[in-house]
Amino acid sequence: MDQELIDKIIKFRDDRNWSQYHTPKNLAISLSLEANELLELFQWVNSNEAIESSKAEIKDELADIIIYSILMADRMDLDIQEIVAKKLKKNNLKYPVNKSYGSNAKYTEL
Amino acid sequence: MDQELIDKIIKFRDDRNWSQYHTPKNLAISLSLEANELLELFQWVNSNEAIESSKAEIKDELADIIIYSILMADRMDLDIQEIVAKKLKKNNLKYPVNKSYGSNAKYTEL
Amino acid sequence: MDQELIDKIIKFRDDRNWSQYHTPKNLAISLSLEANELLELFQWVNSNEAIESSKAEIKDELADIIIYSILMADRMDLDIQEIVAKKLKKNNLKYPVNKSYGSNAKYTEL
Amino acid sequence: MDQELIDKIIKFRDDRNWSQYHTPKNLAISLSLEANELLELFQWVNSNEAIESSKAEIKDELADIIIYSILMADRMDLDIQEIVAKKLKKNNLKYPVNKSYGSNAKYTEL
Repeated sequence: MDQELIDKIIKFRDDRNWSQYHTPKNLAISLSLEANELLELFQWVNSNEAIESSKAEIKDELADIIIYSILMADRMDLDIQEIVAKKLKKNNLKYPVNKSYGSNAKYTEL
Repeated sequence: MDQELIDKIIKFRDDRNWSQYHTPKNLAISLSLEANELLELFQWVNSNEAIESSKAEIKDELADIIIYSILMADRMDLDIQEIVAKKLKKNNLKYPVNKSYGSNAKYTEL
Repeated sequence: MDQELIDKIIKFRDDRNWSQYHTPKNLAISLSLEANELLELFQWVNSNEAIESSKAEIKDELADIIIYSILMADRMDLDIQEIVAKKLKKNNLKYPVNKSYGSNAKYTEL
Repeated sequence: MDQELIDKIIKFRDDRNWSQYHTPKNLAISLSLEANELLELFQWVNSNEAIESSKAEIKDELADIIIYSILMADRMDLDIQEIVAKKLKKNNLKYPVNKSYGSNAKYTEL
């Protein structure tokens, strides 16, 4: 995501003076809520049925999750690029290719 | 986020042949789970206490949310840049600055 | 559920002096967390696979959801019997049998 | 909760022939969704503000969580009374009164 778009997200918040409500705890709650609004589109149906009936809504809810992730990172002075790169390295150690290839087991069971 | 890092995330998945499990519905479930792992770090404590005791974990859980968002976008052939820009425009219409300045009301109540 | 068991749940909380943490907002967070701990047992697998590998855990997580529901009701002075009976009546109006028989459509689409 | 009300919940489902959709995995998803609908009533506000503006909705959402818990227990042939009593015993062992009195620490940190 380019910096210009991130700046627009921050400006959206600041134009409305919403930073006061954006404590990390409140943003964590909002991320759970947005993730469940996405999940709701798959309630009672399978993936194909959900995409057929709700593709536009899926895009919007996924976008909201990303927007709140950026707001959370901004609020806590985190560099998204950096935290994702670090976590990916940890995941590589947790899930060695030779043990996890084609397996849906949790890393604690590998 | 630069394309190189996104490619690493996709490669991480493909190296393990995990695409078979990554139906959009399963990824939506995972996003809810990851968002709640983040939220759990704020359970019973306020934001400052959570940051003091769990800053590293917060970074990791937020990173996982972003990683799954990218996996979801890839699986559904969505352009993150594009869906976020579009949703931000919608949010601008839903929450006009003059009505929502400094307010925590839902747009349905504005 | 008999009153004796409900009383044990309340006593468990009070023996530990945990009522101070049990604001309705905190309990709502905990309910989301517990529901996701249950959901996690179904991540990447179907219902039968989850039951085969995790039946004991499913029981425990479902029990935690019920325990927190009771703690929430107690904290807000709600009668579980009464709120469930009322909601069931609302659901009966929202989902008339002739329109919703065998259908997974949301009531807004009926 | 008396058996008569539980029977009404089961009858509500069966009158609509919804059992076909009620796999344990789908019910676990629904429990997460319902818990988040409850949590949403506390978004951006504290407990008192939520109760003032949304007490009726809180009752309804908590009732939905309990209804789905009962549907899940029925679908998996679980006795709610029994699983709650067992889990409460486990919690008593996990959180000894002398160590957890007045503390919000997780049991892993006690």
